[in-house]
Amino acid sequence: MASEGADEDLERLARAVFDAQPFTRLLGAELVSTAGGHVEVRLRNRPELQQQHGFVHGGVISYLADNAVTFAGGIALGGDAVTSHCTVDFSRPATGEFLIARSHAVSTTRNQAICHCTVHSVDGENERVVAVAQGTVVKAHTPRPPTP
Amino acid sequence: MASEGADEDLERLARAVFDAQPFTRLLGAELVSTAGGHVEVRLRNRPELQQQHGFVHGGVISYLADNAVTFAGGIALGGDAVTSHCTVDFSRPATGEFLIARSHAVSTTRNQAICHCTVHSVDGENERVVAVAQGTVVKAHTPRPPTP
Amino acid sequence: MASEGADEDLERLARAVFDAQPFTRLLGAELVSTAGGHVEVRLRNRPELQQQHGFVHGGVISYLADNAVTFAGGIALGGDAVTSHCTVDFSRPATGEFLIARSHAVSTTRNQAICHCTVHSVDGENERVVAVAQGTVVKAHTPRPPTP
Amino acid sequence: MASEGADEDLERLARAVFDAQPFTRLLGAELVSTAGGHVEVRLRNRPELQQQHGFVHGGVISYLADNAVTFAGGIALGGDAVTSHCTVDFSRPATGEFLIARSHAVSTTRNQAICHCTVHSVDGENERVVAVAQGTVVKAHTPRPPTP
Repeated sequence: MASEGADEDLERLARAVFDAQPFTRLLGAELVSTAGGHVEVRLRNRPELQQQHGFVHGGVISYLADNAVTFAGGIALGGDAVTSHCTVDFSRPATGEFLIARSHAVSTTRNQAICHCTVHSVDGENERVVAVAQGTVVKAHTPRPPTP
Repeated sequence: MASEGADEDLERLARAVFDAQPFTRLLGAELVSTAGGHVEVRLRNRPELQQQHGFVHGGVISYLADNAVTFAGGIALGGDAVTSHCTVDFSRPATGEFLIARSHAVSTTRNQAICHCTVHSVDGENERVVAVAQGTVVKAHTPRPPTP
Repeated sequence: MASEGADEDLERLARAVFDAQPFTRLLGAELVSTAGGHVEVRLRNRPELQQQHGFVHGGVISYLADNAVTFAGGIALGGDAVTSHCTVDFSRPATGEFLIARSHAVSTTRNQAICHCTVHSVDGENERVVAVAQGTVVKAHTPRPPTP
Repeated sequence: MASEGADEDLERLARAVFDAQPFTRLLGAELVSTAGGHVEVRLRNRPELQQQHGFVHGGVISYLADNAVTFAGGIALGGDAVTSHCTVDFSRPATGEFLIARSHAVSTTRNQAICHCTVHSVDGENERVVAVAQGTVVKAHTPRPPTP
């Protein structure tokens, strides 16, 4: 069982890794919370994130699910980790001011954490689930780009 | 069975929709081909698309799978369509000059097409599968943003 | 919002449908509870349900996830329903006296419910998650076998 | 690259493992072919495999997908293997005389094979896709039931 200090170290590592992702900065996502292993990622909606009908693009929702799952799994596993599988079921067209993805590990073994996730659109006080996801995260063994 | 003229109309519609997606323009993806219902989407790798280790971010790969599946399904269904489910299994860290997603419908019924997809990293002549995906596409019934 | 009487009717319908499934009887599964839309399906482990190493076969676990998801979704949708998609991530080899699958709807719209599910092995007081699942359930429109 | 003799050894191993699965015998499935890594599993339809409307139960289709994927992945990896993830999208109610699942590995790395799969209902000469699946198979490290 991790001590409180270890939890804080892990939260700091998670934030550092999250903010070091160029694609995350391109989209503008924030890691809002990792308390108790419950990860919350938030993204402000804007026109460049949308598809042809003005809804948030499914690829943006997939990014949110993928990244929330990765960090929830990484925290459960205690360090650097990668998502090996992610499934997204879309329930509603996504509109609103913000999107929020929430994820936590449901089953953690030595090398793998399986996480559930929901993605919500937020308009003022109003929240609606726009997608539901599940992903598997494994400990990262290869921090360097591989040679071909 | 669609005539050749109908196929050309559908290909033109697909290209128009693809190019009308702001998120697709933000990422820089191109719809390379839709011949025979086999969709190919290409994206040039660049630093802003990457995660903290210099690999292409999983969210970018998920976008490519999601969008290739949507267009393969839309072509199989003969018009505007949305992805209702997408599963991605990641096989290798993604590097290289380009990413290419290829998808086609494996089973099409009146309202739904199920598509298989592979995502490849390309370096010169060298291609490697970096992710394998499956998605379900349904006919779009709501082209306008819903009222909350 | 359904009244208490409607809930009881729905629970009775669920039990009647569950017990009318010949494959469910072949396996010996029981619908333990549907209270509050939280479905619990239980199956006693026995040699014929196993694979070559003495673990419960992945197909049995997939059946449990599929069926728990179908009934959780059907209850959320208020009637007869079918699973259109199910994803299972396996976390541990399954042993023990019983398997229990628990599922509930996470997002319900007019025609579709998306459900999360966990499958547990149970040995006395000891429970362990052996698989985590997600599925989509849609209202059933075709109660009769289709003509080919 | 495996020699022809190695392929024959692997095919023999696959058949021995397949036939050693009690659950596979309970259902009555046969491993029809593994030629070239393309696995075909066949199951004769009968009343005990059905759900309440006389269609083959989704759990049976999930078993077929899971097992076809496991063997396709095991052959790609060259030995004993387990499925760690399987996703099934259902396209049609399943009826007919037989069900056939076909699977092959789409991407194989050192420890993991990702497989695509289709499940067909067969009536005489008539074949229809009833489900489409994708699964991940990993090398088996634990042939013995774990102690709790």
